[in-house]
Amino acid sequence: MIAINILVLNSGSSSLKYQLIDMNDEKILAKGICEKIGSSESEVHQITLLGEKIDKIVIPGISNHTKAFKYIEEMLMDSKKGIIKDISEIKAVGHRVVHGGEYFKEPAIINDDVIREIKNLIPLAPLHNAAHLSGIKACKELLGDNIPQIAVFDTSFYCNLPKKAYIFPIPYKYYENYHIRKYGFHGTSHKFVIKKYCNITQKNSDDLKIISCHLGNGSSITAVKNSKAVETSMGLSPLGGIMMGTRSGSLDPSVILRIAELDSLSLDEVNKILNKQSGLLGISGVGSDDREILKAENNGNELAKLSHEMMVYQIVQYIGAYTAVLQGLDVLIFTGGIGENQWVHRENICKNLAFMGIEIDDELNKTMVSGKGGRISKNNSKIDVFVIPTNEELSIARDTLELLKNNNLI
Amino acid sequence: MIAINILVLNSGSSSLKYQLIDMNDEKILAKGICEKIGSSESEVHQITLLGEKIDKIVIPGISNHTKAFKYIEEMLMDSKKGIIKDISEIKAVGHRVVHGGEYFKEPAIINDDVIREIKNLIPLAPLHNAAHLSGIKACKELLGDNIPQIAVFDTSFYCNLPKKAYIFPIPYKYYENYHIRKYGFHGTSHKFVIKKYCNITQKNSDDLKIISCHLGNGSSITAVKNSKAVETSMGLSPLGGIMMGTRSGSLDPSVILRIAELDSLSLDEVNKILNKQSGLLGISGVGSDDREILKAENNGNELAKLSHEMMVYQIVQYIGAYTAVLQGLDVLIFTGGIGENQWVHRENICKNLAFMGIEIDDELNKTMVSGKGGRISKNNSKIDVFVIPTNEELSIARDTLELLKNNNLI
Repeated sequence: MIAINILVLNSGSSSLKYQLIDMNDEKILAKGICEKIGSSESEVHQITLLGEKIDKIVIPGISNHTKAFKYIEEMLMDSKKGIIKDISEIKAVGHRVVHGGEYFKEPAIINDDVIREIKNLIPLAPLHNAAHLSGIKACKELLGDNIPQIAVFDTSFYCNLPKKAYIFPIPYKYYENYHIRKYGFHGTSHKFVIKKYCNITQKNSDDLKIISCHLGNGSSITAVKNSKAVETSMGLSPLGGIMMGTRSGSLDPSVILRIAELDSLSLDEVNKILNKQSGLLGISGVGSDDREILKAENNGNELAKLSHEMMVYQIVQYIGAYTAVLQGLDVLIFTGGIGENQWVHRENICKNLAFMGIEIDDELNKTMVSGKGGRISKNNSKIDVFVIPTNEELSIARDTLELLKNNNLI
Repeated sequence: MIAINILVLNSGSSSLKYQLIDMNDEKILAKGICEKIGSSESEVHQITLLGEKIDKIVIPGISNHTKAFKYIEEMLMDSKKGIIKDISEIKAVGHRVVHGGEYFKEPAIINDDVIREIKNLIPLAPLHNAAHLSGIKACKELLGDNIPQIAVFDTSFYCNLPKKAYIFPIPYKYYENYHIRKYGFHGTSHKFVIKKYCNITQKNSDDLKIISCHLGNGSSITAVKNSKAVETSMGLSPLGGIMMGTRSGSLDPSVILRIAELDSLSLDEVNKILNKQSGLLGISGVGSDDREILKAENNGNELAKLSHEMMVYQIVQYIGAYTAVLQGLDVLIFTGGIGENQWVHRENICKNLAFMGIEIDDELNKTMVSGKGGRISKNNSKIDVFVIPTNEELSIARDTLELLKNNNLI
């Protein structure tokens, strides 16, 4: 069988993460990361399917994404620990692109027009989209035009949100003139776990009312009806919605104005507080890693406990709100680092929702950790509750392959 | 029968509203307003139980609250159109005070300590609490110490909110050092309509899960369990929660940071946009009066329609969220200018909640307008739905009377 290798790239402002997946069996052949690009301490790591590892720590020469991608090429083709012999064995590159704005309603084959539009969206996601363009440029320079590149957008899963869901209640001109609206994020993840649920249960998502909770360092909750996302918690940026590891989520605006006033903060400083010092970290003071916070809570740390109570309480409210949006609920899915592993939060959330007809099997729930997924609700639960490990890279690779096929490029 | 006249005062920054209520039968003897205090166009109006009216428009001499209160005294004792002969016929004054912070968990007899504490809370409600103090000072100067003054706080209904409900997910020091937390407002109104519901139905609120929707120019939704408010939509200030006439309600913080950045706005300017130019006005462009917006919607104005769809959609989500907080729902109450009069919104809200077991009688719903209250749900509705006209002044008078009695002051 000829390999259908798709390289999935996730370019951050100072990192380049990748996975090489053979789409014949959706197996990861190699994955790795180039970190701290542009600093004097940049480093690269790769591990292959065969367990072969490459760790190169501190490589001061990686000054940009093109140089980083050059390292990745070399690692993938390393004569001893590599996984391919020639770059032409990569059939296509699928790029994660955070912000597709209102323009990109589905994945797109990257050409000059697409690059221009991604550029136009930089004001809406300054760090992300600019970084993605660096990744795209690196691929173009090193792979040439023979290997197709595809952009898969975090936002396009939300292209069917109703207007009442995506307009913010501020002067309408901000939408008309500046495109300020709810875009939604984590679309790739929510889409993946919903599809997986339907595969496992052999159900058709056209008939289902689904709430998917992606709980991780960033968290979002999405409501899906007739296979379409109708509501989601993140907004203009991934700062909105529920409290997260270090992000506040949505707030009474007077809180923001007040903290800015109190300490005479600049917009950048407020942004930093709300993005980097709030959420679980801000309340617990312990850190942003939920495992650390849980350890502290179990050791009697009251603020760690409070941070978890708040998070669970907010999630319960979002599920209640979105059940009203959907006018009922059939399926509740947990995914993401916290959603897949922290069974105690899932238990607390579901206990609070027992009134809706959610009944989980406590023992089963405890077993669904570390990448194990499946049903955690009892058979007689009115609502199916599942833990489904997400796989955004695979989702991007699938979208990439589909687009290649639809365009007779493979 | 000797009249038990209580004067209820609501002092704004440039206005002084009042009602004189005889608590024997809770009848309003007179009500009026002194407006535009401090401007060259200040004016006073009073109407009495007997239909006697005093309208004095443009009285440039009203430079402060004490002078305004002097006018009110004169109007109440006007030999032709007044309602009392001597100021001693007023048994007590009940002051509406918006912000009681964490200090005032119930109404308080005003003394120097109470005044000091209200003053300490000025940073949390700069316009409101400063104005209330002017009203209190005016009464003290003109009534002396023989007529007791009582402060009734909008916030004290929320003194039992659980910590997970009132802490914002920002660095905890903002609560510890600056008392930034959810306080909740409209407490006097929510308390009044819930009590009224229990009176009408002869039910005990200790056994009920209630959601009360005060929808007016300012709007808030409050969840009550075992007679205690456990959650409410307004936050640190009355800007938080659902979208209102001109206020945005809660937002993804990045929206606020983005609009500030786009137009290089100061905090004051952002505050003005979110408080005065957002909500129904901001979307519809028509105005902040819901009747005008409804007229525009009926004339085919798409943005007027959108503004209503958004408002209804948000309310539906809050009711869903608070039902999850309460783990069920027995009673849904509508009050406030919009809640009492705009039957079409009540219909739209309730239709969206039919899945929860809410069934309203469409014809009955249409009749509950212009001060008429009562049940609008069908007899077989799982959840009782009521329209109950609010009366914050009466609620303040009742609290005032109760405090007088408890302290043997009457």
